[in-house]
Amino acid sequence: MKSIEFVDGRVRFIDQTRLPHEEIVVETDDSVVVVDAIRSLAIRGAPLIGIAGAYAVVLASRKLETVPKDSFLNGLSRSIALLRGSRPTAFNLFWALDRMENVAKNHLSESCTSISAALRDEAIAIHREDEQMCTRIGEHGASLFDKGARILTHCNTGALATGGSGTALSVIMTASSQGKIERVYVDETRPALQGARLTMWELMKASVPATLITDSTAASLMRQGKIDAVIVGADRIAANGGVANKIGTYNLAVIAEKHGLPFYVAAPSSTIDFSIDSEMKIPIEVRDTDEVVEIFGRRIAPEGAEAFAPAFDATPPEMISAIITELGVFRNPFATTLIELKRRLEKGSARTS
Amino acid sequence: MKSIEFVDGRVRFIDQTRLPHEEIVVETDDSVVVVDAIRSLAIRGAPLIGIAGAYAVVLASRKLETVPKDSFLNGLSRSIALLRGSRPTAFNLFWALDRMENVAKNHLSESCTSISAALRDEAIAIHREDEQMCTRIGEHGASLFDKGARILTHCNTGALATGGSGTALSVIMTASSQGKIERVYVDETRPALQGARLTMWELMKASVPATLITDSTAASLMRQGKIDAVIVGADRIAANGGVANKIGTYNLAVIAEKHGLPFYVAAPSSTIDFSIDSEMKIPIEVRDTDEVVEIFGRRIAPEGAEAFAPAFDATPPEMISAIITELGVFRNPFATTLIELKRRLEKGSARTS
Repeated sequence: MKSIEFVDGRVRFIDQTRLPHEEIVVETDDSVVVVDAIRSLAIRGAPLIGIAGAYAVVLASRKLETVPKDSFLNGLSRSIALLRGSRPTAFNLFWALDRMENVAKNHLSESCTSISAALRDEAIAIHREDEQMCTRIGEHGASLFDKGARILTHCNTGALATGGSGTALSVIMTASSQGKIERVYVDETRPALQGARLTMWELMKASVPATLITDSTAASLMRQGKIDAVIVGADRIAANGGVANKIGTYNLAVIAEKHGLPFYVAAPSSTIDFSIDSEMKIPIEVRDTDEVVEIFGRRIAPEGAEAFAPAFDATPPEMISAIITELGVFRNPFATTLIELKRRLEKGSARTS
Repeated sequence: MKSIEFVDGRVRFIDQTRLPHEEIVVETDDSVVVVDAIRSLAIRGAPLIGIAGAYAVVLASRKLETVPKDSFLNGLSRSIALLRGSRPTAFNLFWALDRMENVAKNHLSESCTSISAALRDEAIAIHREDEQMCTRIGEHGASLFDKGARILTHCNTGALATGGSGTALSVIMTASSQGKIERVYVDETRPALQGARLTMWELMKASVPATLITDSTAASLMRQGKIDAVIVGADRIAANGGVANKIGTYNLAVIAEKHGLPFYVAAPSSTIDFSIDSEMKIPIEVRDTDEVVEIFGRRIAPEGAEAFAPAFDATPPEMISAIITELGVFRNPFATTLIELKRRLEKGSARTS
């Protein structure tokens, strides 16, 4: 089962809040259902949010096909605005919505049905490209590991987080298929437990040896020499190479640095926001405190307890050993190497457009 | 309500696994009930485990008072051995049991009833001394903080963990009563959530401003300049000043060091094991993996998931700014300053014996 599919004009996705206990597939032709799924984390993972956002625009456009063009375009704008407001940190969502808006603009003179068809083609292209990017990220990243590698990862960055085989987890899966992985240590990743619920599920399905740990166990394992490298995904990468990713990522970067371990970030180029020059300027979503004071609806703190629930944190570029993208492995100084990546992206799109 | 009491020949204690939802007091005259409570974390916190261990010996001795002296002494030995096997890391338990054994030895020629009475007096003395040590730790530690301090703490080190006002939390409470504390950030402390369940409960009861965070949020708060110092307790301190404490403590020491923040350990001198020269040699208890893969009995990982559940980790002395004991604040080089503390302890006990 894929994390998301577009079939017969409907979007099908796994409700990831129910995993690993239940594999529930939601099917909808309503873009608002997709917006709600993104907000509630039923659909999560930066690349997947981008793909889901693109498909949600398609659902909205199909519903509007029969109305006058003014209403069609207004309705489309409202849907895109709603999607832009769903979650603030993951850049892939804005990147995908920008692409969808550009397609609508480029077909503005055509009929609603024709614009809608162009939007559908673009969303499918975004999905297919992400799938290919995942495969390439896996190949580039796996080249960084040697046989016997014991890798620590955080959150979920696998098939469930993307339209393909994942980002950081694609690297791990590819390295494992090359016989390089001795063991993966998986941070449970409080508060939403994506590591325990989703990454363990994916690794166990793939029969990769995996050990679940609480998030604060990693430093002690590193001191004991039991970890060789850390690899995580990214929700947004600034032009300086600084990274916003799941809360706890910066903590991992600090402890990896202390123990002299490489700290890798794996993400498609669609995660890079060249308009932001530092990770400190990336908007960090703060979620409802219920996500910290409750686990599966059961309170873990006294009634009335104050809490702070940021979904992400920011890691500075100097603490990142390499950023692994579909275009290869980029190293510090990222301010220079990511400009080269950007040039290659622009050349590529000039060639294909 | 005190965490533990000895009343009319019975031990009363709060079942801490049920907090903060229910305040259930268990009353027993059976030492095995106390052993089980220590194993299941119903009674936890290194100093409290020591006190509970001493009282459990009293319960055992009272049951044996009427049997022949040989059987009395054998039964007592078996009870003490059972207690020694209950949890391996906290040193206060072994320290308290050594004291109880010495008392039995010193009264060996007396009647069972008389030995039993001496054991009761010793257990009560251990409890009272811990209470006084907590108060002094609070006073010594509070002197380290300035007005407006924003303090991060981990696990529970308060009244619930001791026979008095606590260790690290006693420092925080005392500093708060001096108007010095702006806010306490409380690590939830996975896997057993003592921070969320117990420390938040104690701080809220005392009306100290407290914010609950997941364990991996602390580093990001430090980078944002929101934390001034870290203070934790200890389960065992080696002669070199290295500390075994709740899993996640070493992680905190690393991130505090990265951000130039003081990292304090507060513990009674009974926590120091002078027979071990390095924290790396302290036995670290590994708990059942259920404590990681389940939360309140609900699985968070797929069936069959492997996990690793160490209860403690080890922090080296060079990462500890000061160790706060009832005898004052000790700084590096601990190998020297703790010897001075030991000399003072020996002088003190020579004076009182």
